[in-house]
This record gives sequence, structure tokens and C-alpha cells, in this order.
Amino acid sequence: MGGSIGVGLIGTGYMGKCHALAWNSVKAVFGDGPSVRLVSLAEVNADIARKKADEFGFEQSTGDWRELIANSDVDVVSITTPNAFHAEMAIAALEAGKHVWCEKPMAVALADAERMAAAAKASGKVAILGYNYIQNPLIRQIGALLADGAIGTVNHVRFEMDEDFMADPEALFYWKSEASSGYGALDDFGVHPLSLMHVLFGSVSKVQAHLSKPYAERPTRDGGKRAVETFDIASVLFELGEGISGVMALDRSAWGRKGRIALQIFGSKGTIVYDQERMNELQLYLTSDKPTEQGFRTILTAPQHAPYDRFIPAPGHGLGFNDLKVIECHELLRRIGGEPARVIDFDAGLRIERSVHAMAQSHQEQRWVSL
Amino acid sequence: MGGSIGVGLIGTGYMGKCHALAWNSVKAVFGDGPSVRLVSLAEVNADIARKKADEFGFEQSTGDWRELIANSDVDVVSITTPNAFHAEMAIAALEAGKHVWCEKPMAVALADAERMAAAAKASGKVAILGYNYIQNPLIRQIGALLADGAIGTVNHVRFEMDEDFMADPEALFYWKSEASSGYGALDDFGVHPLSLMHVLFGSVSKVQAHLSKPYAERPTRDGGKRAVETFDIASVLFELGEGISGVMALDRSAWGRKGRIALQIFGSKGTIVYDQERMNELQLYLTSDKPTEQGFRTILTAPQHAPYDRFIPAPGHGLGFNDLKVIECHELLRRIGGEPARVIDFDAGLRIERSVHAMAQSHQEQRWVSL
Amino acid sequence: MGGSIGVGLIGTGYMGKCHALAWNSVKAVFGDGPSVRLVSLAEVNADIARKKADEFGFEQSTGDWRELIANSDVDVVSITTPNAFHAEMAIAALEAGKHVWCEKPMAVALADAERMAAAAKASGKVAILGYNYIQNPLIRQIGALLADGAIGTVNHVRFEMDEDFMADPEALFYWKSEASSGYGALDDFGVHPLSLMHVLFGSVSKVQAHLSKPYAERPTRDGGKRAVETFDIASVLFELGEGISGVMALDRSAWGRKGRIALQIFGSKGTIVYDQERMNELQLYLTSDKPTEQGFRTILTAPQHAPYDRFIPAPGHGLGFNDLKVIECHELLRRIGGEPARVIDFDAGLRIERSVHAMAQSHQEQRWVSL
Amino acid sequence: MGGSIGVGLIGTGYMGKCHALAWNSVKAVFGDGPSVRLVSLAEVNADIARKKADEFGFEQSTGDWRELIANSDVDVVSITTPNAFHAEMAIAALEAGKHVWCEKPMAVALADAERMAAAAKASGKVAILGYNYIQNPLIRQIGALLADGAIGTVNHVRFEMDEDFMADPEALFYWKSEASSGYGALDDFGVHPLSLMHVLFGSVSKVQAHLSKPYAERPTRDGGKRAVETFDIASVLFELGEGISGVMALDRSAWGRKGRIALQIFGSKGTIVYDQERMNELQLYLTSDKPTEQGFRTILTAPQHAPYDRFIPAPGHGLGFNDLKVIECHELLRRIGGEPARVIDFDAGLRIERSVHAMAQSHQEQRWVSL
Repeated sequence: MGGSIGVGLIGTGYMGKCHALAWNSVKAVFGDGPSVRLVSLAEVNADIARKKADEFGFEQSTGDWRELIANSDVDVVSITTPNAFHAEMAIAALEAGKHVWCEKPMAVALADAERMAAAAKASGKVAILGYNYIQNPLIRQIGALLADGAIGTVNHVRFEMDEDFMADPEALFYWKSEASSGYGALDDFGVHPLSLMHVLFGSVSKVQAHLSKPYAERPTRDGGKRAVETFDIASVLFELGEGISGVMALDRSAWGRKGRIALQIFGSKGTIVYDQERMNELQLYLTSDKPTEQGFRTILTAPQHAPYDRFIPAPGHGLGFNDLKVIECHELLRRIGGEPARVIDFDAGLRIERSVHAMAQSHQEQRWVSL
Repeated sequence: MGGSIGVGLIGTGYMGKCHALAWNSVKAVFGDGPSVRLVSLAEVNADIARKKADEFGFEQSTGDWRELIANSDVDVVSITTPNAFHAEMAIAALEAGKHVWCEKPMAVALADAERMAAAAKASGKVAILGYNYIQNPLIRQIGALLADGAIGTVNHVRFEMDEDFMADPEALFYWKSEASSGYGALDDFGVHPLSLMHVLFGSVSKVQAHLSKPYAERPTRDGGKRAVETFDIASVLFELGEGISGVMALDRSAWGRKGRIALQIFGSKGTIVYDQERMNELQLYLTSDKPTEQGFRTILTAPQHAPYDRFIPAPGHGLGFNDLKVIECHELLRRIGGEPARVIDFDAGLRIERSVHAMAQSHQEQRWVSL
Repeated sequence: MGGSIGVGLIGTGYMGKCHALAWNSVKAVFGDGPSVRLVSLAEVNADIARKKADEFGFEQSTGDWRELIANSDVDVVSITTPNAFHAEMAIAALEAGKHVWCEKPMAVALADAERMAAAAKASGKVAILGYNYIQNPLIRQIGALLADGAIGTVNHVRFEMDEDFMADPEALFYWKSEASSGYGALDDFGVHPLSLMHVLFGSVSKVQAHLSKPYAERPTRDGGKRAVETFDIASVLFELGEGISGVMALDRSAWGRKGRIALQIFGSKGTIVYDQERMNELQLYLTSDKPTEQGFRTILTAPQHAPYDRFIPAPGHGLGFNDLKVIECHELLRRIGGEPARVIDFDAGLRIERSVHAMAQSHQEQRWVSL
Repeated sequence: MGGSIGVGLIGTGYMGKCHALAWNSVKAVFGDGPSVRLVSLAEVNADIARKKADEFGFEQSTGDWRELIANSDVDVVSITTPNAFHAEMAIAALEAGKHVWCEKPMAVALADAERMAAAAKASGKVAILGYNYIQNPLIRQIGALLADGAIGTVNHVRFEMDEDFMADPEALFYWKSEASSGYGALDDFGVHPLSLMHVLFGSVSKVQAHLSKPYAERPTRDGGKRAVETFDIASVLFELGEGISGVMALDRSAWGRKGRIALQIFGSKGTIVYDQERMNELQLYLTSDKPTEQGFRTILTAPQHAPYDRFIPAPGHGLGFNDLKVIECHELLRRIGGEPARVIDFDAGLRIERSVHAMAQSHQEQRWVSL
């Protein structure tokens, strides 16, 4: 890597800012790779675009994302708009010869995700998705432990993802309860555990889901009630490729859970446990320890767990959520530079989307669905 | 309660000793109830019976359990033999006019469980099962919190039970891997979470299970291999009566888990989390707390959580596993004395057994089964 | 061990009951040792004595403890009365040729403790103190780890003991705030950490304490205020024999702490951490683990940690506070039977008392005091 | 705030990079304040300076820090060199009319710290120290809880700081074991807990310390041994202004501890517990909770805890260590802009240094020292 890369960013919400922070930090953190030139920021409201371009350090701003994509100084486009816009923007950017870094999930409709993957393939450009949780050095360490056979042959896994932003029954009905937004927790959340499964184990082969609604209706602004159309809770039985049985439980109405993504991985020689709410800790049980001294070890992220060392040379000081995006940005740059990189590209993303739709189908048809 | 009660104990293994300890302590711990007279101990090996009677403080011993049941000084019979003997012994004891305290589960075959429940009904005697986990003061506290609406309307639950006594793939094949012993984790473990569900929520209405084997075969004493017939892992989707969705995951090959029974109960106003491995701690999240101060509280068992105060007057000093059996024994005595008691009687036990068999059926037929 | 032993118990409060439970269970739990005959229970109120004798299973009761000591069927006397009575009763029992099991601390005044130790020596009988925390199988495991050099040479330790029974400033003034009861946290609590230090490391050689009062005065029943005379908080710097530096912090007004006794033991090859509030868990850090996999292990008590196996054959199911007293009772019986035993006898207890008084002196004189 | 500010950075080690990251992110994170212009980077090796300036995004680089200070485009100077250089550089920068952001501690010798404080005063410029731990939103929340009287009147505190970078007895002797580097843990670590004490409680009034060496000597490169001159362990008794007793324990040879800064704050109505190793969690015990529901709450950092919301709008997703420096940078800019700011300026820093030296004196003289 080397030289310079021109960045365009579409969207200035939570994820837009998160991308902006990553683009601002990646060179200083990693030291290698191209210099980052923040060329243009697009946001439907041109005034906000201008203000945010100033804050985030972009040279230009625009109220028209197509203008950004047409900008010849832009080499890579960060897409952080609502999911409904991903397909159109990503395809346009790819067709304009830009690399694409698109937030997850790919799209609401499977057909859109398929078009995106096809466009990526046709373009020859790099197109990846914002599955930041896979970038945690400890998730990488879990992968290394599995590859080394540290816990033997995996036979069972459990994945949970829970937050509570939909937990208040008195909160007003909003778009996340509309069917047009998707299935609910399944696509809103499920894709994250599935991205972790993807990097750690590969694809699910068979699924049986059960979706449910904690609240049948929610209040509306006019004092009435409106029926909820999406499922805030999803529970899934599944099998992974080589005979691994699994359970996945998702709940975006889970009071008290703020960013829980809990993994339990059981093998013939040990067990790995992880929870994103304590993202700097990994639990590891090994049968090779002495019988009187066996127990789950709480391993704190340390310089031995690359690329933590790029952020902090001392162990146990703690990465934050936004740091994961910086690592993701660096992996994107490596992929663009032709180096091996840990990313969920549009092909892998499409496989994740297919799993999600199979789960929804299994719920509707109350039966196991194979992939 | 008052007077004296004559006790007969069949079995001197782990649970036999646990019952013996409970019978020895119950009066001293609770102060009330009848005096306990340890009349007779039965064990197929008469020499062991004699030795254990001396250790446990029983007046007599016998190698013939029918002799114990015929003993007119015996009012209540503790049955702690392997599951295959439960039905025969319990029915004989009930027919002989004794109260029965039988270890869980009721029986391997559903038909046997049904005969046991019928015998209990016909006898008019008290017949309960050894579901000790429901006796934890903190489980009682969870029940009180639910009844008080502390966490609002429950909409989702997760139950896990994991141990690792079958986790070693090199351990010799033994009877727990034979089909004659039952389904595997489902009946060996599942009945415990189901007993907790029973006291906290009532019955499951609909189930879909997936059973799996971590190891297809296990070594035999002669250096060969034998195919495993039972399922050490079970994963279950279910619904509870009033629209509560649930997940239950069971694994008796889960390295590092020693006595985990983890509950997560999500409601419209809060969440309750519990893990039997930390049986003196309860996690409670309440939305009524101030926004800047909301978090899961770790509540230590205290005298406010009856009947902890009968064991220790100071908070946070810790009950142990065997103490739960003392509480169970006291509840049995209350039931015998005609007082309200927290027990799983043979009727409730039969409902639990039916759930287990429905889960096994749902696995075999790969479909949802209603109860 | 074998035969029969006659027990007399003085006191029916918390610790009286705890002793009674231990005497009722010890033979059933351990299987070995003499049969236990519960001969007599003494309590100043003869009616209560009679009632409690019935509950606890004693043959006789008396309102006069001297009568109990004179009883020729009594071989060993449990003394669980307030500290002020320990010396008189223990010395009388020893002089009457009884073994003595006396609750901690020995006495308020050092001179009394010295007389007790002298009486024990003169009698040739077994005289031990109720330091139950040393009986936890995990404390024994810590001792084994230290003896094996698992964490290398220890260079620093920290001990904390905190409860909150004196934490409420609105609670009425009672005897624990009177100078006649002792120094406060130092003797009320400090003796427990010191008993752990004694079995793990030996004696302290040099101390510097700072005592403080969270509340200068407390309300009295008549609506007034009374100056507090004892120190609910004590902080101590110390050195252990071989150059180990240490800190001990004690607080009986520590809101939220219910039975915390926290140990941190730092060595040249690892670290041990323990907290009595999670008495079934031991934390162990070993530098011999692989660099990417180093972390504190949470070890759950298991049958490998004797004598846990005498209570429960399955790991991780949990001992309780009262179980520690049963182990202590068994160690007492072993000592009486002439076998090696883990006890704090009156000689060791006296060394602990001397440490406490040296700490108080160091506070009063604001200087280091050597022992 | 507004306009633009020119930054000079001296040093490119761990803290140099940390400052660089903060300067790169602060405007994007907070949105307000001046635009940041990265003017010049100084590092004794001009080649490294050039390379790092490229990575960190500085316009110029220099091998001569005096040149940087003379640069008229530089408004504020970040000083991240070894402690021995702080005084000379900070004073020169202040005399040149620059604001100064200097890493902690101020200096090895108290006289140097005093000269720095005098220079700051004389200059009229902003001069602050890099005490980043005070910037954690949860430390701010602790301050708010204390100010609101949430836990009543504080009567006792305990502070611990432990890492293990000096724990290996086989590690080669290096400058941190030389007396010229300072006392050891006391100044290397102690200043951090003292900075927390400063913002939460004010100054210590009385101290008594005990310093110790886990290893008397360490190996040298030539295969020999060299006597260790510094104290890796420090234990301190102290009093805070209004009758609060305290204990501080520091250990930079504490195996397994990686970034532990543990606080326990006991009040008349509750308790606060915090550990930097879980920097996104705060433990709070309140007596105002219902008796059956009292327990330590684990509060995860959330948008309600400003300025977490500037980094992430969703709760519980986790800040990292480097984020604290961004907050510190923002507070510096606020102070420069004349707004209220949470900083340890040179005056406050000097008070911290005086505490450290008083502690060292109390150890040498084996007596209490008042401040």
C-alpha cells in the first residue's frame, strides 16, 4: 500500500460519523497504506452536508450523492444511508468505477442484494460490507484458537444478540415496526452473529426459526395504537456445515442489554465464550489445564492480539467500538491494495442475506429449511 | 406440624446421601415440624446398607427395599435409586400407605410416569419429586418479582442447562449413552429447567426440538468403539401459555460448565437473569431506575429472601447445593402437614414428563408439537 | 476415628445453631469418625434451652452452663456465647477435662486470651477456635498452590473484609459501638483475614494501622445521640515474615458488601484472587500459560478440591457457608482422634490476637509496631 | 470555540501517537471547537520525525524541538517525551507563548514541577497534564453521583492501581529500576489514582506509605545481576480533607493485572465501585432500593453519560482507552477557548506531585506526614 486514496462519504448519521472517524484515523493508527484524502461528503440536506464536511474534514460537500459518485477524485465510496438506499447507491458507485464500503445489511429485499453482488462482480472493484464486529482482535483470536484446534472439534454453538432500543412498549410506533423495514430482529440483528459465524465456521446449512412480537401494537403520535408488523424477537435452531448444532437468539426488546453479542462455542477439548458488551475479554476453558486448576480464563486484549498493538502497546487498556471501524477501514485498504484482508465482501454478504431469508421462510412455513 | 415422622430411605448414592443430610438437618434448621425419626435404610447390598445406616444415623438397615416399605414405623419413603426403579418402588410405597419423596425424573417411560401419578392420586398420600432447584430462595424471589409485576409482562425467556460430565470423547461408553436410559440431555437435564418454568410460568404449549450428538461413538473397555444412542445436546424452541416465546438449550458435554442453569427472563419493564453456578446471586434490571443509573443489580441472597434466614441470619454468606434439599424436605413436611407447600408433586411431574416426550417427538418428526 | 463422642453446646444464637447443624451432619457427610451423641444444650434461659434442644436434637438441656460442663457424658464443649464469656467457659471446660470448640475471637482482652491458651496447654485437651473460613476447600487449594510454587515466590498480598451491618447511620447505638466490645472492625473482622494469613503464610512481623469511624455518633432509643467508641473501619499496612508486604482493609459499614473477604496474592509467577462472597470460585493467573491465552481462570470448587467430594460428587454445584462449619467440626474430630488436622488452636489463636492488639497499638501511637 | 488552532507535537512514542490520534479526531467527534491544523512534529531522530509526520498527518517535521516551539504557526504544544524532559520543554513552550499539553507526571524532581507551575502562571497560557483517566464519562458520572449525594457522605475510599509490566523477575534491568527514574510505583502509578482523587474529592491531608521491592535485583545484559533501586510496590494509608480514611495500593509487578485502576467509595447511603479494566462499567449500590432488591448495579456507559454520546449514540457499545485522550483534547480546547473545562492544570498537578513526595518521605521516615 502507499500513495493516496480519495474518499467519498454518503450519509452523516451514526455510521456516517463512524466512517469519518475511521478515515481520519486509519493512517495514524496503522502507519502503512495510502494517505487518505477526504474528498467529498454527501447528505441530502446540503447545509448539513456543508457543516459536517467541516467537522469531519472533507474538502467538499454536496446535497446530491450522484455528484459525489461522479467526482473523479473519489476512489472509494462509504455508504452509510438507510438500508433502502444501499442497492441503488452501491451499484451506481461500482458502475462508476469506485470501490464501495457499504454498511450492513446489504438490502431489505434479497433481489437487491443479488443485484449488488452481481454489480460488484461485474465491476472488478472492491465491495465490502460494514460488519465491524468481525474486526475485534479477540474474534480474530477465537478464529486462531479454532484453527489451532485449541478446543478440539467444535460440536455446538450458541449465539445471542440483544439490545433494548425497542423494549419500551410506550415508545411511539416508528419505521422499524413497519414490514417495509424487513423482518425485525432477524435482519436487523441476525446478520451480525451470522457475520461472526461466517468468519469462524462458514455457512449454515439448515435452519428453523421462530419469530415473535413482544408487543402486538405500539402507540402512535395521535394517541392511537398501530399494529406492529415486525418481529423484535427471533429464535433459531440451525446446523453448520460439518454437523455442528446451533442456537441463535435475537431480541431488540431485551431490557438491560445494550450491545450484547454473546457467543458460546463448545468443542471436544474446551470452550470459548465471548460477549461484545465486554469486548476486551475472552473466556477460554481448556481441558489441557491441570484438573485442580481448570476454569474459564478471562483473557484481556493485548498486543499479542493483532492489531490491538497498533492502537495501544500496553495490554488490557481497552479498545472501543469505534476502533473496530478503523480496523475494518484498514482491511478495506488492504483488499484494495491487493493484500489478504479480513472482510465480508458482497459475495459473503449475499450468503448471509440468504440465511436470513431462509430463516424467515422457515418461520412462515413452520418447518426446517435447507440452504 | 409437630409430633414425629418415621423415615425410610432407599438408595445410598449421591442423592441418597443428600436425602439423608436433609432428614438429619431439617428440624434443626427450621425449628418447626415433626421430629424426624430415621427408621430404616435400604440398599441392595445389605453390608453397605448397614454401614451407611450407621453413617447416616438410621436405626435399621435392609438389603430388601420391600421390607422397608412394609415397616410400620416408616411414614415417608425417600426413593433415590436409578430412574428405572422409581415407578415400581413409588407405587409400592404409595400402595403401602406411605408418603413418597422420589428423585427426578419420574421414569424413563411415559407410561410409568402415568402409573405413578395414578397411584399417588389413588393413595391420597403425598407424593413429590426431587426438583431441588425450585427451592432456591432466589428462585422464589424471581417468582415474587414476576407476581408483583416488577418486570412487567414477560415476553421472552431463555433457559440453558449445561454440565461437562459427558464432554470427554475419550471417556468409556457407559449406560448414559444407551437408548434404554432415555433421550439424553433432554430428560436427564431438561426436566430441571422445566421444573423452574413450571413454578415460574406454568406449562409449555408448543415445542420444536433439535437433538444432536457431539460424539457419534465412544470407546469401549475392550479397545473398540460403540455407537452412541443418546443425544448429549438438545436445543428447543417453545411457547409458554400466554404468548411467551422461549429457547431452551441443554448440553451435558459442555466443557467448563459444571452446574450451569442459566435463566434470562425478559419483560416489558425489566429483565431477570440467573445462573445456578452462582446460586446466591440474582441479576435484576428495572426500567424504573433513573436513566443514568440503570443497570443489572447483583442481588445476594439475604434473610429477606425466605427461608435463607433459617440457615444464616447474615446476608450474602451463601447457601450451598445441599441446603436446597433441606428446604425441599421442609416443604414436603409442610405438604404432609396439610400446609401450603412449594413442591412438584406427581401430577406436576407428569406434565413435565409429557413436555419432554413431546420435545423428543418434535425432533423425530422435525415439526412443532403442541401440548 | 471411631466410637462415640458426647457433645455439649453452650449458646443457641446464630453460631450455636451453626454448631448444632455441624454436629448433626458431620458423621453423615464424612462417613468416618465417632458417632456423635448430642448430650446437652445450655442456654441462660432454660425454656429456650429446652425448645432448642428439641429442635437441634440434644438429649438434655440446662439453664446453667456449669452443669453442662460437669456432665460426664460430655466429651467436647462447643462455646458460642458472646465473646465476653469465652475465657471463663473455655477455661472451666478445659479444667473439667473437656475438649473445647470455641467461637472466635478468643476474648476481648489479651490477658484473657493468654489465660485460655495456658489452660489449654495445661489440660492436654484439644482446644480450637471457630475460624471457619480457613476450611473452604478453595482456601486449602490456595495453600496447595502456594506450597507447590504455582505462583512462584509471593511478594505482596492484599486482604479485605467488608460487611454492611453497621453501615446505616440511623441504626440505633448498640453494644458493638461500645469500647467494652473491643476495637471495632479490627478484632470483629480482622481476625478472619488473619486466620487466613496464618494458614497460608504464617505470622505478621510488623504492622501500622489506621482506625476510623464512619459516624461519630449514633441515635439512641430515647431520641438522643451517643458518641461511637469503636472503629468500624480499619486499614493496616504490614509485613509478613519473609519480606512480603501487605495491606489489610476492614469495614463493617461498607454498604453493599455482605460477606466479602477478598484476597489478592501476588507472586513471581502468577496471582491468586479470591472473594468469600463467591466462595465457590478461585481466580488464578499463571505466567506458564501461552502468551495469547493468559488470563485469570475462574476455578469452581470440584471433587478434586477435598473435602468438597464428601458433600457433592459433581463439580461446581456449590458449598454453602454452613458447610464450612461441618468441615471444621470434622477437623476437630480428627485432632481429637490424634490425626493431622487443619485447625486454629488456642496457641495459633493467641498469635492472631497479639497481631490485633499490636495493630491497635500502632494506631494509638501512630507508628509501626513489630511483633 | 471556533477558528483554527496550530498544533505542535514533541515525541512519537506511545503517548505521542495517542496525542496525534486525539488531535486527528477531536473535531470530527465533537463537531465544535476550532479546526485543528497539525503544524509540526518534533522527534530527536529527524528521519523518524519525517516518517511519523507523514503517518500522523503533520505538515512539517523536525529533529529539533526548539525549532517547533519557535514556529509561529504553533499555538499549542503536546509534550510526550520521557519525564526527564518535561520541565525544560514545557517551560520553554510557555515562555514562547504556547499553550502546553504535557504528559504526566510533571517531573521527577519536585523543584522542576514547581518551576513548571510558576512558568505556567507567569505565561498566562493554558498548561495542562495528560491525566486521561479523569476523562472517562463514568468517572464524571461518579462525580455527579457524589455531588448529588447519591451515596450520602463518603467515609472511606480504596484505590488500587496494578499492572504487570515489571512482574517478570527474569526481565532485564532497565531504567525504570534506576533511582533516577523516581520512586517506582509511587510516582509512575500513584499519580493516576491521585488525579482521580483530585477531581472527586480534593486533596489528601495526611499520608503514611510503605514501599517495597518484589525483586531485590534483576538480571543484566551481561549475565550478571544489578540491585533494583526503585519500589515496584507501594501501599499507602491516607486521609482526605473531611475525615475520609483511605487506602491506596500500587503494584507494577502484579501478574495478571493489565490496566487495573480500582476504586471503592463507601458512603452513608451507598457504595460506588469501578475498575479501569472494565472502563465501560460502573458499580453502584444504593440503600434507597427495596430491601429484597438491593445489589450492586452494573451500569454500562450510555449516551446519558456525556460525552459518550459524541462517540456513539447507542448505549453499552464501549469507549476505548484512546477515546479518553480525545475527550481530554477537547477539554484542553475548551480551556483554551475560555470555557469551563475538566483538566488537571499545572497547579493541580503540582498538588499531586507534592502528595507523592510526601508519601515517599513518610516511607523513609516511617511516620505519618501531613500536607
